[in-house]
Amino acid sequence: MYSTVKEVTVRSTFVAVLHRILQLLILIFVVFYIILIKKGYQEFQEPQGSSIIKIKGAAQVSIHNSNLHTDNSTQALWDAADYVVPSIETNAFFIATRKTVTYGQTQGICPSSLNNNLFCNSTYNPCKRGKPTPNAFGYFTGNCVPSQENTMINVCEINAWCPEELSNSTDYTINIDDLLNITVFIKTAVSFAQFNIKLRTVKQDTKFSCRFNSDTDPRCPIFQIGYIIKKLREKNHRINRKALYNQGGLIQIEQTWKCNFDSSVENQGCFPTYTFDLLQSGDDKLSPGVNFRFVEKYRLNEIDYRTTTKMYGLRFVLTISGHGGRFDIRSLFLAIGSGIGYMIIAELVSEFIFMRFHRHREEFRRNKIKVFSLKDNMKARSGDIVDY
Amino acid sequence: MYSTVKEVTVRSTFVAVLHRILQLLILIFVVFYIILIKKGYQEFQEPQGSSIIKIKGAAQVSIHNSNLHTDNSTQALWDAADYVVPSIETNAFFIATRKTVTYGQTQGICPSSLNNNLFCNSTYNPCKRGKPTPNAFGYFTGNCVPSQENTMINVCEINAWCPEELSNSTDYTINIDDLLNITVFIKTAVSFAQFNIKLRTVKQDTKFSCRFNSDTDPRCPIFQIGYIIKKLREKNHRINRKALYNQGGLIQIEQTWKCNFDSSVENQGCFPTYTFDLLQSGDDKLSPGVNFRFVEKYRLNEIDYRTTTKMYGLRFVLTISGHGGRFDIRSLFLAIGSGIGYMIIAELVSEFIFMRFHRHREEFRRNKIKVFSLKDNMKARSGDIVDY
Amino acid sequence: MYSTVKEVTVRSTFVAVLHRILQLLILIFVVFYIILIKKGYQEFQEPQGSSIIKIKGAAQVSIHNSNLHTDNSTQALWDAADYVVPSIETNAFFIATRKTVTYGQTQGICPSSLNNNLFCNSTYNPCKRGKPTPNAFGYFTGNCVPSQENTMINVCEINAWCPEELSNSTDYTINIDDLLNITVFIKTAVSFAQFNIKLRTVKQDTKFSCRFNSDTDPRCPIFQIGYIIKKLREKNHRINRKALYNQGGLIQIEQTWKCNFDSSVENQGCFPTYTFDLLQSGDDKLSPGVNFRFVEKYRLNEIDYRTTTKMYGLRFVLTISGHGGRFDIRSLFLAIGSGIGYMIIAELVSEFIFMRFHRHREEFRRNKIKVFSLKDNMKARSGDIVDY
Repeated sequence: MYSTVKEVTVRSTFVAVLHRILQLLILIFVVFYIILIKKGYQEFQEPQGSSIIKIKGAAQVSIHNSNLHTDNSTQALWDAADYVVPSIETNAFFIATRKTVTYGQTQGICPSSLNNNLFCNSTYNPCKRGKPTPNAFGYFTGNCVPSQENTMINVCEINAWCPEELSNSTDYTINIDDLLNITVFIKTAVSFAQFNIKLRTVKQDTKFSCRFNSDTDPRCPIFQIGYIIKKLREKNHRINRKALYNQGGLIQIEQTWKCNFDSSVENQGCFPTYTFDLLQSGDDKLSPGVNFRFVEKYRLNEIDYRTTTKMYGLRFVLTISGHGGRFDIRSLFLAIGSGIGYMIIAELVSEFIFMRFHRHREEFRRNKIKVFSLKDNMKARSGDIVDY
Repeated sequence: MYSTVKEVTVRSTFVAVLHRILQLLILIFVVFYIILIKKGYQEFQEPQGSSIIKIKGAAQVSIHNSNLHTDNSTQALWDAADYVVPSIETNAFFIATRKTVTYGQTQGICPSSLNNNLFCNSTYNPCKRGKPTPNAFGYFTGNCVPSQENTMINVCEINAWCPEELSNSTDYTINIDDLLNITVFIKTAVSFAQFNIKLRTVKQDTKFSCRFNSDTDPRCPIFQIGYIIKKLREKNHRINRKALYNQGGLIQIEQTWKCNFDSSVENQGCFPTYTFDLLQSGDDKLSPGVNFRFVEKYRLNEIDYRTTTKMYGLRFVLTISGHGGRFDIRSLFLAIGSGIGYMIIAELVSEFIFMRFHRHREEFRRNKIKVFSLKDNMKARSGDIVDY
Repeated sequence: MYSTVKEVTVRSTFVAVLHRILQLLILIFVVFYIILIKKGYQEFQEPQGSSIIKIKGAAQVSIHNSNLHTDNSTQALWDAADYVVPSIETNAFFIATRKTVTYGQTQGICPSSLNNNLFCNSTYNPCKRGKPTPNAFGYFTGNCVPSQENTMINVCEINAWCPEELSNSTDYTINIDDLLNITVFIKTAVSFAQFNIKLRTVKQDTKFSCRFNSDTDPRCPIFQIGYIIKKLREKNHRINRKALYNQGGLIQIEQTWKCNFDSSVENQGCFPTYTFDLLQSGDDKLSPGVNFRFVEKYRLNEIDYRTTTKMYGLRFVLTISGHGGRFDIRSLFLAIGSGIGYMIIAELVSEFIFMRFHRHREEFRRNKIKVFSLKDNMKARSGDIVDY
């Protein structure tokens, strides 16, 4: 015993043509969208990987001693080991554009810096003994003493690493042209474990003289800082570059791999694309830029000293995303299956038109639908089984 | 020629009502669950982003020299640059709560520390020349020499960085109240590239005097360590806080963005929520806490020296997750499509009841199902086509 | 009024049996594949977590002074604090296998190293004043001066950190046997927030004397470097180990959690599996290995000095992936629903065979399909409604 639905076939050119057109449209949608665009016949995997990032470039640096209040700028130079801090990170790097260095700090008692605005005098003393200072560098001793920078002004005395950063430090600022010429070599290796495929941004034919350009050289793994800044400005013209270099910023580099492993040609040549995004800029109204403090400690005659460096700079975070696809019989079946599903829509629409709007809808319904009511079951049982 | 299924319509109030009720229930499910709860009419994207984390707070520190075996505690202070090691990381930070510092180590030969329990005497010598010591700090020389800490006891001599950490080091311990007052400012920027939307945890109206509180100030990006510890204890009352501060721990901060970009009001105000989790605590039976060694090297008269600091502390790892949704016509169609799919269940259930349990099921079947057998095909062909 | 499709039942053993076999096959597929293999009745969550990685092992080191051009190798030793740089990272670690240390660099003017091949003489001077040197360590002064290493040869003079790394540095190379004996303890904690489950790689019964072996001890969280290298060689025999140790490499450790939280036994015993992958090796044709420079600065008599260390070594990146599943009534319903969907395929195939290839297909069609044409609607209306 095998049961199946009973069908009615109507000889109507209009509905038949309408039905076929609908089927064709959906077929085109299924083939184009699911099979060709979405590559429904492929299984996909996201890349897993990591990068080794190497930064190169010498930069001239202007030195300015903040506490002298004179413009006695001198010159020095930084190489990559000076401005890349920390020296290695996972999928991230930092390029210092400005350093404020306070040499030879030692724990003790000293007047707070004038820049802290912690003024006091014999009648007004806001420096409460034992309370932490607003900048959280140390504690108030409770005394009101002459400032180190200007002995005419009295300020709160503090117990902290002395001298304080703001009162006696040296500023190093990178030359902007040199900064923009710094190059970043992103050596990424990703693996698609399911397909047993490994890809690298460096290939046999990579030339180290190349520079990345999304139009002319999109496969080069070496990026100039100036190019990245240019790309950020193309996205948003209002970027304040001076603030960015002075206060620092957070830049996201998104590396996207879209690989088709069915064609061996494409496999050989699967390269990632890159997009750049400024996540934090140097002129955000609240808490602009990127900076952090880095200390080096040393000990002389049983006393701890430290050199504190406040680093401002461009922090880059690299994200690896994308997918690789390869022909898979199961995915193809699922795609065809969902295609069949969409075909049902053609049936529903044709039916709807024929049942509701067609000239002969009454007749169609009569032929299609058999009506019976359970109340005349006695009569139906006794009579001939003529009506099915 | 257009083919469609032949239908049977039964005049039965019971089944019709049942059928409609089922359809209604599924419709409600589809509308509420798929459209409203799962937001089936939206397309979704996960946020991509990174954080700049700034830590602030001065802390008092007790100093205790381990090799003197006396309680000659003195005081010092740490600012953020002292206890945040390393100074910058991606979506992570470490706050030292205790440091064991061994000053002026140099490579050479010295007695092992009493704490290593490498005892020996003229008859028993377990120190095999050239073998690494159990703590892997160096190698045995094979000699048995008087201990540095107590000359009455003989211990194995080692070739290592001398003096050994355990035999001559200085302990620095943070004041717990000061630790709990340390604040962490998490400045996150995320982008939803598909929607061209960027969000930050810092907005125009963020006040830097605020402190995060999931009830009273859930939008504040500044977290007090004390609050995080309180939240961890609410989850698990048995957390041994003393062990946590002494041995360190690993804490996960999960930042979840759930944004609806259809309403521009919500877009402006989309803030992340936070959950805190203690992944490693200070009193785990095996390998408790978090610690690592950090060395600073220097050279005097062609000899390498180093200062070794064993850091214990709270390591925080920040994860960014969530999704943002926006109206998408394709998603809406797919949701409606899957809704139609669920509608079929109403048909199947009604049919099942009518065919199996209804009083008039026999009659219903007779009307619905036409039975024919292929053996009497001759007869059927010869007779009138009356039965279809 | 309740409408349903009219059915035709055929008494044909062949088609009925075929139909049932197809239904059975699809049922088996649905039950085995969706329910048992894909665990369609479970809801899944990916683990969120982080690792604390502790590295242990003493290693002997050969020292060789590059500028003396003699083989005056001496010995030193490294402990974990020497070769793990930086001292803490998130889900990553670096083990130095070779260090090239340049002591006491200061900014100034010096002859470039012979290794740079920047030769010049009285007639040929390629050193353009103010241009950066090819290795980007500094700038040309424009002068041509005798080399520091060999005064008979003239080279370009440079303004840089002097002496240059290539002309006067000390090489430290790890003993390979000691490197292979280094152990890495990976203390991972993951949480499945949705299920409120936390798992660790360290359990109550973990013995710290164990060493990971995928066959004999797959639950041990302590890995010997030698074992990881062995596993990499099993995957790819052509790995050049000498180049790997000398130039460094990037190794991915993938930790995969596949947990079934329905059985409490499995929950207790859910351990991750590990796979190892060499992402960058030491003999890649272009840009082989992994290295970075690390500087330590100090100041004497107002002059900045630095010690530059070029580190070569093995960089390990740990990725945490996988999923945990738990019974979920909604997932079960969805799985059953999709199973019903697949059942429709059985109907379509049976129908296709019966309509196209069966001996009695003509008769079957006549019984199944009722044909009517809208042109004879007048006649149909006037006549008896005998044919439906």
